Amino acid sequence: MSGLVLSDIKNFEAIAQLGTDVVSLAQGALRIGGVDQAIKNYVKEILDTDLADYYSPGLGLPELRAVLAQQLSEQGQCSVSVRNVMISHGSMGGIVTVLRAVLSPGDHVLLPDPTYVSYYNLIHVAHAQPISVPAFVNSESGWIFDIEVIKKSITAQTRAILIANPSNPLGICLTKVQMIELAELAQFHGIYLIIDEVYENYIFEGEFCSATSYAVTNPFVIRAGSFSKNFGMSGWRVGYVIASEDIINLCVPIQDIYLGNPVAIAQYAALYALKNPQLLVQAHNAVKQCRAITLAALEPLNERGILKFEKPASGLYIFAKTKENDATELAREILHLAHVAVVPGRGFSPRTSGYLRICFARDPQVLALGLARLTKFFKQPVDIETILLSAQKFEQKLVQEFAVQQESR
Amino acid sequence: MSGLVLSDIKNFEAIAQLGTDVVSLAQGALRIGGVDQAIKNYVKEILDTDLADYYSPGLGLPELRAVLAQQLSEQGQCSVSVRNVMISHGSMGGIVTVLRAVLSPGDHVLLPDPTYVSYYNLIHVAHAQPISVPAFVNSESGWIFDIEVIKKSITAQTRAILIANPSNPLGICLTKVQMIELAELAQFHGIYLIIDEVYENYIFEGEFCSATSYAVTNPFVIRAGSFSKNFGMSGWRVGYVIASEDIINLCVPIQDIYLGNPVAIAQYAALYALKNPQLLVQAHNAVKQCRAITLAALEPLNERGILKFEKPASGLYIFAKTKENDATELAREILHLAHVAVVPGRGFSPRTSGYLRICFARDPQVLALGLARLTKFFKQPVDIETILLSAQKFEQKLVQEFAVQQESR
Repeated sequence: MSGLVLSDIKNFEAIAQLGTDVVSLAQGALRIGGVDQAIKNYVKEILDTDLADYYSPGLGLPELRAVLAQQLSEQGQCSVSVRNVMISHGSMGGIVTVLRAVLSPGDHVLLPDPTYVSYYNLIHVAHAQPISVPAFVNSESGWIFDIEVIKKSITAQTRAILIANPSNPLGICLTKVQMIELAELAQFHGIYLIIDEVYENYIFEGEFCSATSYAVTNPFVIRAGSFSKNFGMSGWRVGYVIASEDIINLCVPIQDIYLGNPVAIAQYAALYALKNPQLLVQAHNAVKQCRAITLAALEPLNERGILKFEKPASGLYIFAKTKENDATELAREILHLAHVAVVPGRGFSPRTSGYLRICFARDPQVLALGLARLTKFFKQPVDIETILLSAQKFEQKLVQEFAVQQESR
Repeated sequence: MSGLVLSDIKNFEAIAQLGTDVVSLAQGALRIGGVDQAIKNYVKEILDTDLADYYSPGLGLPELRAVLAQQLSEQGQCSVSVRNVMISHGSMGGIVTVLRAVLSPGDHVLLPDPTYVSYYNLIHVAHAQPISVPAFVNSESGWIFDIEVIKKSITAQTRAILIANPSNPLGICLTKVQMIELAELAQFHGIYLIIDEVYENYIFEGEFCSATSYAVTNPFVIRAGSFSKNFGMSGWRVGYVIASEDIINLCVPIQDIYLGNPVAIAQYAALYALKNPQLLVQAHNAVKQCRAITLAALEPLNERGILKFEKPASGLYIFAKTKENDATELAREILHLAHVAVVPGRGFSPRTSGYLRICFARDPQVLALGLARLTKFFKQPVDIETILLSAQKFEQKLVQEFAVQQESR
């Protein structure tokens, strides 16, 4: 018997879905305007053929792997071969398979925390042991990553480090120097560095350094990616893993059992999305707008210390400190009294029980309603109309910027 | 490191797919006329909404679970609730999740053999131990199931029995008496009986007793099912598990990690299929026709003892004894010289190394070509035209039968 339980994210989301009038800012998925119609039109074309009717190859559609390899090679200025690519059922499906391929029961996996809640169960399911290490430190200038904490935590039982970059829930990114140091550290100790880059498309400030180029040169670095997050197509469950050919080969029999093969029609949707990178820009801009209106709406709470947070440099979340030691009861009150679902912080780290995670990747109308309720709950009400007006202005700005970009081409 | 390797089924299939002129009678999936256009048309309608855009609930679409529960209740004359149903990524995905939920590392799982090759890896992936037990016995009247072999094999370490019914590769079914005995045996010993019913739609002779009614009344019985096989939609990867509410609840956090949730659009395709049971009849008849022409084409080989087999009462396969002690090299020769992929028997049981598994669920044109090549390889050539003519006659017979059925309603 596994003895595992669902995370607060899933529990609060499930309650939100049951309610008829709950705005969910809980689960970390884009819910903005649906999957682009162009992707769906392409899927309809595929449905007029038998291309997606039968099992696809275990590692994914050859064309999808090839286009991904080519694009990642260009982006990372490195050489990604199709043999470095495995298509998975979301990025989580990829990490599940990788962990079963490289770990033995009882192995320790370091989780620099605060970290994505589900990673704990992810490691337990592989019969390995998650070791939470406080590598993200809340300094005066905000959250920073301290690699020394990782170095001190490595023992003979450590077999892997699993980290989301950009961070969930913190919204900060590893610097290039940190990435290089981590990759070298992993290779030196002969342990795996698994980097989950599901939020790579949502960088709003500063630089982002992908692990792709390290994953194809360093046999201990593994990188996961997501179509669900990049293109807002979470229902389609397509992700991927980039790693050395040896690791991909180790994954083959595991993927064969866990998945057989990814859903064919979903891979065609992913293929179309990949070939149309303007869809990435579109999703990025939509989330950027959501972020801007959220920051505007919550700033008065921030100033008054009711919800203290830094502007997230990346990702889909505000991670805010409340006045509570444990904000779980507060999250329940917000859900039951204000009809807004947010996620309590205790699951992300033992140090963040007093925090709330707020996902802002929602349709502006829905987001505005949620924020209006949330600010009203905290007695710093912001009017929906005001929020939407600021959203409208922000959108106009984005449209103008986009026009300028197009002209200058 | 897992140390696992892919099965011969996947290896031979992969080689078949690489060749430009290979007829694959290897992998056990329907490849007859593609997924029905009516299913695809419904999917297109869903694509005009946002219903399938976002994550679906972890256990699957509520409507799909509800319709399935209702239909299975009627079929099994029992009471299946939605809380007994988990939608999975194919039936294999369901069994993967169940095994992780109910087993501990080192537990023994009995596999009555000959058995589906991938079950061995399936159990290894759960860090448990597959124990192959020779419960299918090749008697004078053909293969029979001997429950005494199971009884003798249960030890303190046994935690589950996993069996495909109808059998893959044998094409025989458990009798109702055997099913009841197995279910009682499981309950008596407090071990799980996991019955994989992926071939339930392909019963050609005799009775079939589903485990559904036992799965909802006996807390140790678990039943898996497949849309891929029932409706010939393998690329869509939808299956399900029927079990006690307690077991489904144990599966929730495991499914959350392994799958997150099944692909939404695929579940809508499954929903449409389920609501249109004439599609089941259609798939059944198509396979029945394939079986008839295969039996006709291979009978001369059977008579001469070159490929000895019994008519399969169910399923998609001929499981034939060759003159070899180990038919693996023979399968390679057939692949390379005759350009037909079949599966060598060694993976199914230590006792069936001399066998070949031939999947006949293929478009009649393709199947006829494969059978013509196969019979030519064994120097008992059958003409393609003759095979197709017999197929045509068989189809006319089916159409007539169907018309009579309709009239008599």
